[in-house]
Amino acid sequence: MLENALGVCGDYIAVKALENGVTIIGLTRGKDTKFHHSEKLDKGEVMIAQFTEHTSAMKIRGRATVLTKYGRLEAGE
Amino acid sequence: MLENALGVCGDYIAVKALENGVTIIGLTRGKDTKFHHSEKLDKGEVMIAQFTEHTSAMKIRGRATVLTKYGRLEAGE
Amino acid sequence: MLENALGVCGDYIAVKALENGVTIIGLTRGKDTKFHHSEKLDKGEVMIAQFTEHTSAMKIRGRATVLTKYGRLEAGE
Amino acid sequence: MLENALGVCGDYIAVKALENGVTIIGLTRGKDTKFHHSEKLDKGEVMIAQFTEHTSAMKIRGRATVLTKYGRLEAGE
Amino acid sequence: MLENALGVCGDYIAVKALENGVTIIGLTRGKDTKFHHSEKLDKGEVMIAQFTEHTSAMKIRGRATVLTKYGRLEAGE
Amino acid sequence: MLENALGVCGDYIAVKALENGVTIIGLTRGKDTKFHHSEKLDKGEVMIAQFTEHTSAMKIRGRATVLTKYGRLEAGE
Amino acid sequence: MLENALGVCGDYIAVKALENGVTIIGLTRGKDTKFHHSEKLDKGEVMIAQFTEHTSAMKIRGRATVLTKYGRLEAGE
Amino acid sequence: MLENALGVCGDYIAVKALENGVTIIGLTRGKDTKFHHSEKLDKGEVMIAQFTEHTSAMKIRGRATVLTKYGRLEAGE
Amino acid sequence: MLENALGVCGDYIAVKALENGVTIIGLTRGKDTKFHHSEKLDKGEVMIAQFTEHTSAMKIRGRATVLTKYGRLEAGE
Amino acid sequence: MLENALGVCGDYIAVKALENGVTIIGLTRGKDTKFHHSEKLDKGEVMIAQFTEHTSAMKIRGRATVLTKYGRLEAGE
Amino acid sequence: MLENALGVCGDYIAVKALENGVTIIGLTRGKDTKFHHSEKLDKGEVMIAQFTEHTSAMKIRGRATVLTKYGRLEAGE
Amino acid sequence: MLENALGVCGDYIAVKALENGVTIIGLTRGKDTKFHHSEKLDKGEVMIAQFTEHTSAMKIRGRATVLTKYGRLEAGE
Repeated sequence: MLENALGVCGDYIAVKALENGVTIIGLTRGKDTKFHHSEKLDKGEVMIAQFTEHTSAMKIRGRATVLTKYGRLEAGE
Repeated sequence: MLENALGVCGDYIAVKALENGVTIIGLTRGKDTKFHHSEKLDKGEVMIAQFTEHTSAMKIRGRATVLTKYGRLEAGE
Repeated sequence: MLENALGVCGDYIAVKALENGVTIIGLTRGKDTKFHHSEKLDKGEVMIAQFTEHTSAMKIRGRATVLTKYGRLEAGE
Repeated sequence: MLENALGVCGDYIAVKALENGVTIIGLTRGKDTKFHHSEKLDKGEVMIAQFTEHTSAMKIRGRATVLTKYGRLEAGE
Repeated sequence: MLENALGVCGDYIAVKALENGVTIIGLTRGKDTKFHHSEKLDKGEVMIAQFTEHTSAMKIRGRATVLTKYGRLEAGE
Repeated sequence: MLENALGVCGDYIAVKALENGVTIIGLTRGKDTKFHHSEKLDKGEVMIAQFTEHTSAMKIRGRATVLTKYGRLEAGE
Repeated sequence: MLENALGVCGDYIAVKALENGVTIIGLTRGKDTKFHHSEKLDKGEVMIAQFTEHTSAMKIRGRATVLTKYGRLEAGE
Repeated sequence: MLENALGVCGDYIAVKALENGVTIIGLTRGKDTKFHHSEKLDKGEVMIAQFTEHTSAMKIRGRATVLTKYGRLEAGE
Repeated sequence: MLENALGVCGDYIAVKALENGVTIIGLTRGKDTKFHHSEKLDKGEVMIAQFTEHTSAMKIRGRATVLTKYGRLEAGE
Repeated sequence: MLENALGVCGDYIAVKALENGVTIIGLTRGKDTKFHHSEKLDKGEVMIAQFTEHTSAMKIRGRATVLTKYGRLEAGE
Repeated sequence: MLENALGVCGDYIAVKALENGVTIIGLTRGKDTKFHHSEKLDKGEVMIAQFTEHTSAMKIRGRATVLTKYGRLEAGE
Repeated sequence: MLENALGVCGDYIAVKALENGVTIIGLTRGKDTKFHHSEKLDKGEVMIAQFTEHTSAMKIRGRATVLTKYGRLEAGE
């Protein structure tokens, strides 16, 4: 589908888990903002995730390094 | 829908909660500006949120670091 | 609507309230320039607001830090 | 309307009033250049205003800081 | 009209009057280059003016600071 | 007309007269290159002039500072 | 197909395995986010992988260097 | 005509005559490259000239400063 | 075909083999990610390879220098 | 013609003759590469020449300074 | 053909042979990746080669300097 | 033809011959890569040559300075 092809250009973030059980939660685009997917990362795992037709927000729980267009954040207490 | 596909290119902000109960509130685009979603963050959680077809403003309550295109703000007293 | 999808690309400002009762007022785009929305911020709250199909100007009242494309302004006396 | 959607991309200026009664006057685009709106700012208030389908020039009266794409001007004597 | 919507992207200059009676004169675009509007500025007033569908040249008379894409000029003797 | 709307994006030069009687002459675009307009500047006056659908060259006579995309020239002997 | 041709412009990451058994897992774009492919790398192998019509997220397991648009991450404990 | 409107975006050069009788000659675009216009400059005069639908080359005779996209040349012996 | 013409703009990587038998493996774009081509390089050979309509990932085995948009990697143990 | 209008955006080079008789030769675009125009420059003359619909290569004979997008060359022995 | 016209914008590499018999091999774009052309260079010869509708990869054998968008490689042992 | 008009934007290289008999050879774009033109340069001559609808590779023989987008090469032994 053309929608997916356009989605290829979406921006992305990179997350490195600094402990087991880091969670990256995708929130739905559209009228309702709901959790639609959650991905668990073990310590040391890296995830690269795009914004998509279905995901317009992401939440990161647990100790992790997050790289974004506007800089780096250390998630977790 | 094509609208969602275009939305993939929307700009975003990154928020890191520095205490429990930080709230990110999405305000509706369009004639009326109303709260349409609010997301709670616990201490250390990070949220990355795009402007979307439905969200043209966001409000952050509580102690948090906010990264935007024009710089960094420390929310909270 | 396509109009909203295009609106996703609008520029935005970031405002941090430095006291209670900071007000961000949206003024209407179009022939008449009228107040159409006003948002109250308590001390420490941050608001990120886009220009939209309905808002072509914003007014900030009270002590606040304002980040714009052309630099930073300290609102308030 | 599509016109308004396109207007979202218009450039803007930022004005901080340094005294009460600063006025920002919008002048009409089109064959005739007339005042179509004037906005009063009290000391410390900030206004962010886009060029729009209806405004192709702005006039600032009173002591104020003006941020533009080509630099900063201090209005007022 | 679409013409006006496109005009929103026109470049602009910023002028600060350094004395009373500074005049900014708009000259017509098109086959004939005629004065179509003149705006008087008192000392300290700032004007931000776009090129438009009707204005392809501007003349500044009197002591003033002029900010343009290619630098700053001090008008007046 | 659409032609004029497109013209809004044309590049421009800025000229400051350093003596009375500085002349800016517009030369026609198209098959024939003829004078179609000349504008007199008194000492200290500034003119900002775009290339247009009708003007593809400009000539400056007299002592003046000329700002262009490729640098600054001092006209006049 | 045109979709594939557009996909040629997708962004990519580069991964160098620093131990045997590093895994790069592609997650599906679209309503459901599922594993659709996993690629094993031995120590020293490099993989360059684009986001595609079918892949909107990637997960890296094991010790590896990951190059992304927003910087470099060392995956693995 | 649309052709002229597009021509507004053509690149330009700036020439300052350092002696009387400097000549700027426009050569025709198209199958034949012929002189179609020549403009005389007296000492100190400045000319700003675009490439146009009709001009794809320019020749400068006499002592002059020439500003181009790729740098500055001193014409004349 | 138009698809191929668009493919001309695809990004590429450069690989220099530092030993005999370096392998560059192309993985298929599309629903299934399979090996579709593998190219052997002897010591000192350089390969420049684009992402294409058919290749959305590449794997490099053996000692090699890899140049990518996000930096340089030394493949191999 | 539209072709000519598009040609306005072609890149150009600048040549300053350092002796009499410098020649700039235009070679035809298309299947056959033939001389289609040659222009003689006397010492000190400057020529600014675009690539056009008819010219895809240029040859400079004699002592001259040549400014191009990729730097400056001194032609001639 | 339009395909060829678009191909004009393809990226290219530059290769200088540092010994006789350096070979630049073009590999086919499309489903099958096969050799379709090979060009021999003698010591000191330079070749500039674009990616095209038919070439999506190039292989360089022998001692040579290779300039690419991402840096310089010395081919050969 | 429109193809030629688009070709005006093709990239180019600049070559200065450092001895007599330097040859620049154009190789055909398309399925077959054949010599279609060769141009001889005498010592000191400069040639500026675009990639075109018909030329997708160029070969330089003899002692010459070659300027490309990715740097400068000295051709010849």
